[in-house]
Amino acid sequence: MLNIGVIGYGYWGPNVVRNLNEAPGAKVVAICDLEEKALSRAAKKYPRMVTTQDYKTILADKDIDAVAVTTPVSTHFELSRMALNNGKHVFIEKPFTASVEQAEELLELAEKKNLKLMVDHTFIFTGAVKKIKELIDDNTLGELYYFDSTRINLGLFQRDVNVVWDLAIHDLAILDFLTGKSPSAVTATGISHFYDELENLAFITLYYPDNFLAHINVNWLSPVKIRTTLLGAQKKMLVWNDLVSDEKIRVYDKGIEGDLTKEMSYKTRINYRSGDMWAPKIDQIEALSHEAEYFIQCIENDLTPINDGAAGLRTVKILEAIIKSLKKGGELAYL
Amino acid sequence: MLNIGVIGYGYWGPNVVRNLNEAPGAKVVAICDLEEKALSRAAKKYPRMVTTQDYKTILADKDIDAVAVTTPVSTHFELSRMALNNGKHVFIEKPFTASVEQAEELLELAEKKNLKLMVDHTFIFTGAVKKIKELIDDNTLGELYYFDSTRINLGLFQRDVNVVWDLAIHDLAILDFLTGKSPSAVTATGISHFYDELENLAFITLYYPDNFLAHINVNWLSPVKIRTTLLGAQKKMLVWNDLVSDEKIRVYDKGIEGDLTKEMSYKTRINYRSGDMWAPKIDQIEALSHEAEYFIQCIENDLTPINDGAAGLRTVKILEAIIKSLKKGGELAYL
Amino acid sequence: MLNIGVIGYGYWGPNVVRNLNEAPGAKVVAICDLEEKALSRAAKKYPRMVTTQDYKTILADKDIDAVAVTTPVSTHFELSRMALNNGKHVFIEKPFTASVEQAEELLELAEKKNLKLMVDHTFIFTGAVKKIKELIDDNTLGELYYFDSTRINLGLFQRDVNVVWDLAIHDLAILDFLTGKSPSAVTATGISHFYDELENLAFITLYYPDNFLAHINVNWLSPVKIRTTLLGAQKKMLVWNDLVSDEKIRVYDKGIEGDLTKEMSYKTRINYRSGDMWAPKIDQIEALSHEAEYFIQCIENDLTPINDGAAGLRTVKILEAIIKSLKKGGELAYL
Amino acid sequence: MLNIGVIGYGYWGPNVVRNLNEAPGAKVVAICDLEEKALSRAAKKYPRMVTTQDYKTILADKDIDAVAVTTPVSTHFELSRMALNNGKHVFIEKPFTASVEQAEELLELAEKKNLKLMVDHTFIFTGAVKKIKELIDDNTLGELYYFDSTRINLGLFQRDVNVVWDLAIHDLAILDFLTGKSPSAVTATGISHFYDELENLAFITLYYPDNFLAHINVNWLSPVKIRTTLLGAQKKMLVWNDLVSDEKIRVYDKGIEGDLTKEMSYKTRINYRSGDMWAPKIDQIEALSHEAEYFIQCIENDLTPINDGAAGLRTVKILEAIIKSLKKGGELAYL
Repeated sequence: MLNIGVIGYGYWGPNVVRNLNEAPGAKVVAICDLEEKALSRAAKKYPRMVTTQDYKTILADKDIDAVAVTTPVSTHFELSRMALNNGKHVFIEKPFTASVEQAEELLELAEKKNLKLMVDHTFIFTGAVKKIKELIDDNTLGELYYFDSTRINLGLFQRDVNVVWDLAIHDLAILDFLTGKSPSAVTATGISHFYDELENLAFITLYYPDNFLAHINVNWLSPVKIRTTLLGAQKKMLVWNDLVSDEKIRVYDKGIEGDLTKEMSYKTRINYRSGDMWAPKIDQIEALSHEAEYFIQCIENDLTPINDGAAGLRTVKILEAIIKSLKKGGELAYL
Repeated sequence: MLNIGVIGYGYWGPNVVRNLNEAPGAKVVAICDLEEKALSRAAKKYPRMVTTQDYKTILADKDIDAVAVTTPVSTHFELSRMALNNGKHVFIEKPFTASVEQAEELLELAEKKNLKLMVDHTFIFTGAVKKIKELIDDNTLGELYYFDSTRINLGLFQRDVNVVWDLAIHDLAILDFLTGKSPSAVTATGISHFYDELENLAFITLYYPDNFLAHINVNWLSPVKIRTTLLGAQKKMLVWNDLVSDEKIRVYDKGIEGDLTKEMSYKTRINYRSGDMWAPKIDQIEALSHEAEYFIQCIENDLTPINDGAAGLRTVKILEAIIKSLKKGGELAYL
Repeated sequence: MLNIGVIGYGYWGPNVVRNLNEAPGAKVVAICDLEEKALSRAAKKYPRMVTTQDYKTILADKDIDAVAVTTPVSTHFELSRMALNNGKHVFIEKPFTASVEQAEELLELAEKKNLKLMVDHTFIFTGAVKKIKELIDDNTLGELYYFDSTRINLGLFQRDVNVVWDLAIHDLAILDFLTGKSPSAVTATGISHFYDELENLAFITLYYPDNFLAHINVNWLSPVKIRTTLLGAQKKMLVWNDLVSDEKIRVYDKGIEGDLTKEMSYKTRINYRSGDMWAPKIDQIEALSHEAEYFIQCIENDLTPINDGAAGLRTVKILEAIIKSLKKGGELAYL
Repeated sequence: MLNIGVIGYGYWGPNVVRNLNEAPGAKVVAICDLEEKALSRAAKKYPRMVTTQDYKTILADKDIDAVAVTTPVSTHFELSRMALNNGKHVFIEKPFTASVEQAEELLELAEKKNLKLMVDHTFIFTGAVKKIKELIDDNTLGELYYFDSTRINLGLFQRDVNVVWDLAIHDLAILDFLTGKSPSAVTATGISHFYDELENLAFITLYYPDNFLAHINVNWLSPVKIRTTLLGAQKKMLVWNDLVSDEKIRVYDKGIEGDLTKEMSYKTRINYRSGDMWAPKIDQIEALSHEAEYFIQCIENDLTPINDGAAGLRTVKILEAIIKSLKKGGELAYL
C-alpha cells in the first residue's frame, strides 16, 4: 500500500485526493494547503487524514511514498524538487513547470533518483481521447491533415498565468499523445483586455512535419462555452464535442476523392465523398480515476508513464515558444 | 428604367440576374457567359434577354447603363475597366480585384468618369449583419473587444484562388462594415494539402486600433459546415450562427463586472455577469435583393454606396497583406 | 410521351407541375386554377402550357392521358371521378378523399376502367423513409415496439380541415408504408382554440396487432417547428429528425438486455444496452421527383403503385376513425 | 433546531438527507434503510447520525420532530401514518400515496394532529418552474392554451409502478402548481412491452376548464433522453428544455394575430406574429435545497405548504383516473 501526500487542496486538489485515495494499492494520508478553509473542508470529508498548512510536514514524512503537487504552477518546481530529493515519487499538476529549465532539472533529478515523475495530462485518460488515439493507430482515419480546437468560455480569469497556460496546455498534451510528434515551429496571436500582461484570448498555430498543422483557439471572454476539436484526415474526419454527454465523437466518412496531389488540369472535377456518420461508444469513467490507478501501477511495476516528465517538458517547450511568439505579435518561433 | 448587362452566368450570376431584374427601376437586358450550357439555361429562363458569348456585345451596347461583373476575380479588372471606359456603372463580384494596384486604378477611373462602382459585399445586406451593426451603433454592445469567425465546410475547392480569397473575404467585408476601421497589421497561417500554392485552410488574425482584435478561421476540408461568429464586447456579447433559420443572432448579457483595467490585488474577486439571452427578430429578405435595389438607388440618386470601390480597395489591401503573411509562415504584415 | 393536365396551382401544385413535367416520358400540357394570379404565375413560368380556369377543358381534352388533382380535399372526389370517367389516369393529392365512401367509389371506378389511381403520399418517396423501410425489412431494427411522431409548428391554419387532416395524414401514410399493417383501433384527443369545429392540436394513439403502438402529436400552434419521429424496436432504435439537412436518421444500438418477457423476480437486474450511434447516408433527391417518375412508370408498365387508391382508402379509414374518437373526447374507435 | 429522521436511503434518499441536513434550523439525526449496503454508505458519509434497519427506532424516538419518507410508494401510507400518530411532521416522497383513499386518510390525520404533511414535488422548486409561474402570474404569457410535455429516456424500468407513476407524476405536480386548476377528465393510452401490467410508455391527455388542455408523453424505452415542455398561450409561448444547462426556458413572441374567435370568412387572412425570442436568467440553485428550507420554515412558522397533502391528494386522484383510462384503452375518465 502506497502512502500519498497531496499538496494543494484548491480547485483541482479535491479531485486528485479522491481519486488517488480510491486507487487500488494506494491511500492518501496527508493533505496540505495554505488556506484554513480548504483544510477544514478536507478534514471534514477525510477525518482520518493528516491536514497541515506546512508542506514540509508532508515532504519530511518518511512513511509517505509519493506526493501529488496540485498548487499554482509557479510553485511546481520547488515543491517537486524537494519531494524528489526526499525520495518521493511525484504526480504534478499541469502545466508541468514555469520554464523549460525547471522541467529539465526535474527530469534529470527524477532519473538520477530513479523516481517516477508524472504530469497530470488528464485529458489523455478520457474515453474520448483514448478513442481518437485508437482510430489513429488502427488507421481508421488515415494520414492526419489538421487538428483544430476551440476551447472557450466565460472565465475563469487567472491572475498568475494567461489563457494559453490555463487552457491551451490541454490541447498541447492531447496533441503530444495523439500524434507522438512535436511541432517544428509555432505562431501565436492574442490580446489582453484587462491586465497588461495576461492575454485573455489567443490563437495558436503549430507547424508539424509531414504537412500536418494544428490550431488552438482559447478564450476566457466568450459568451458561450465551446469545447470542440476537428481532426481532418485522409480517410475519415472527426469532430469531438466534449460538452455533450453522449456521442462526444462523431466520425464522418467525408473527404475528397482522387489523387489530387498530382498536377490537375483546371477542368478536372473534384469529387467530394460524403457517406455515413458514426458515433462510437466511448468509455465514460472519470479520466482522473484511470490516471490515478496508472500512476500507482507505474510506481509498483517500475514503468515509464506515457505522461512522464519528458512529456511535460515537451509541452512546456511549446508553451515557451507560444509565449515568445505572442509577445512579438505572432512572429514564427522555432522549437 | 436602367438597362443592365450581366457578364458571368456561373454559380452566383443567376442570383445577380434575378435580383437586378426584379429591382424597381431596372431590368436585365443581356447576359454573357463563355459556356454554352450556362447561356442556354439563361435563355430558357429569360427568353426576352439577349444572350451572348462575347462580352464586347454588352460593353459596346449604348442602351446598357450598368454592367454586373460576376466572373472569376482574375478577369474583374479588365472587364470593369472596359465597362467604365464605355460609360457604364459597374456592380462587381467580390473579391473586388486581384491586386491593390488594380483596385486603385478602377477607383480612380470611376471617379474620373463619375460612375458608380459597387462591390458585391452581399453579407452586409443580410438581416443578421444589419442587426449587429444596429446593436453596435446604438451602443447596446458597448466597446468592441474581439470578432472571431469560423467559416468552414467541405469544398468547394477553387482552382484559381485559395480559401482566403474565397471565404475570408466575407469576413473582411463584414468587419469593414461593422467597425468602420481598418486593421493596422495582420498575420495568417495556413496549409495546402492538395495543391502546392492554394491553401485549403487558413487562420487569420487582424490587429485593430483600440485593443480590438479579429480572428478568422476558414477551411475547405471540414467534415461539418460552420458559419459562426462571436462578437465580444464590454456590455453585451453576441453569437451569430448563420446556419439556423431562426434566432441567427443571440445577444448575451454576459461579461465581467468591475473596473478591471486598474491595478488589482491578487485577492480581488472577479465577478462574472450572466443574465438573460435575447434573440432579436431579424429581416429575412434575401440580401442580394436589398443590395440590387440599393445599387439602382445609388445610380438614380447619385449616392456613394457604402460598399463602393473604396470599400473594395480596403478589403483587397487586407487580402494582399494576409497572403504576404501566409507565404512567410505567419510573419506580421503591416498595412 | 404521356400528356398530363394539372388541376390546382396553389401551394403544392407548382411542385407537382415541375416534377411531372421533368419526369422522363411525360410532359405537362395544361394547368387549371380558379385564381387568375396563380394562372398568370404558371403562364409566365411555362409559356408553352395551356392555362385555364375551367377544369373541364382539361378533363375533356382527348390528348391528355393523366390528370393530377392538387386542389382542396373537398373537391378530390368529384374531379377524380370525372377524370376517371373520361379515361384518364389520376394522381391525387393527399388526403385521398373526404370520406371512406368516396374513396371506395374511386377505387372501384379506377379498377373498372383499368386506370391508375395514385395518391400523393410524398413522404414514402423520401430518402429518410426509404432508409427506415430498408432497416425494418432487413431486420436491422428487429421487432417494432412503437412509433412516436411529433409534427408541430406555427400555422398554417387551414379553414376547411383540422390539423389531423392537414398533418397527421403524413404519419398515417408513413405508417401504412413502413408497417404494412393497419391499426385495429384508434383514440384521439384535441382542442380547437379558434374555430369551433377545427382542432388546431391533436394527439392520436393507434393500436396495432402484435403489441405495436403508434402515437402522433400534431399542432398548428407551436412556437417551434418539430418534425421528429422515434421508432422503438427490439434490436435497434432510431430517431428521424426531418428538419436537419444531414444525419436525418440516427440509429441507436440501445435497448434492454435479457429475456424480460418471462416472469422476473423483483431482484433481477435489468441491463440497458448502450452502444454506437450510426447515421446512414440517405438519398437527398426530391421525393416528389421520384414519385412523379414512379407514376409515369406505373402507367407505362401497368404496375400497381404502392401508394394506390387502396393505400389512400386505408388512410382515409383511419382519418375517419380519428375524427370519430376526437368528437367523443378520446373514446376508442375500432376499425 | 429540528431533529429529522429519514426512512429510505436508496436512489433519492441521499439527496433528501443532504439537503435537510444543510437546511438552516434543522439537522438529520437518524437514517433508516433495509439494505445494509445503503446504511454503511450513510454511516461513512455521516458518522454522527444514527443508522438503523428498523424504522420503528426512528418513529419511536421522542427527540425526532419530523420524518422524511423516501421509500417505495407502496410503503408511504403506513410509514407516514405511524409518523403522524407519533406526533411527527412528515416530508413524503412523490407520488404521495398508492391510492386516493390513503391520501385522504393521511390528510385528515395530519389536520387532526395539527402536523405538517409535505409532498416532495421537487420540480416546483426549480428555477425553471418558478420562472414559468412568474410569467403566468404577471400575465406575460396571457391566457394559457395548452401544456405539452415529453419526458422520455431509456430506463430506469421500475418493478412496482408503471411509467405513469414514475414519470408523469412530475408533470401532474407541475401542472397543479402552474395552473392552480384540476382537470375535469383524462384519457390515457399506453403499452407494456415487457411486463404484463406495467406500461413502459404512455400518452396522457388532461382536459381542463376554460379550453386548456394538457398532454404528457412518458416513455422508458426511448433511445434519446428528452425533457421538453411546450406551453402555448395567447400573448407569448414558451419552450422549457430541462436538459440544457443554460437557457432552459425560451419565451417566443409568436402567435396568431387578430380576433379569430369570431366568425371568419374563408378569405380572411390569418396573420402569424413572429418576434424576438428571450431566454430569461433562471435560479440555478438545487431545487431540493429550496424545498428542504421551505419544509423547515413551514414547521417553524406554522404555514401551509403549497405542496401539502392536499396537493398530493389532487395528483393521486389524477393518477388513479389515468390508470383507469389506461386499463380501458383510453376511455374518458372523469374526476
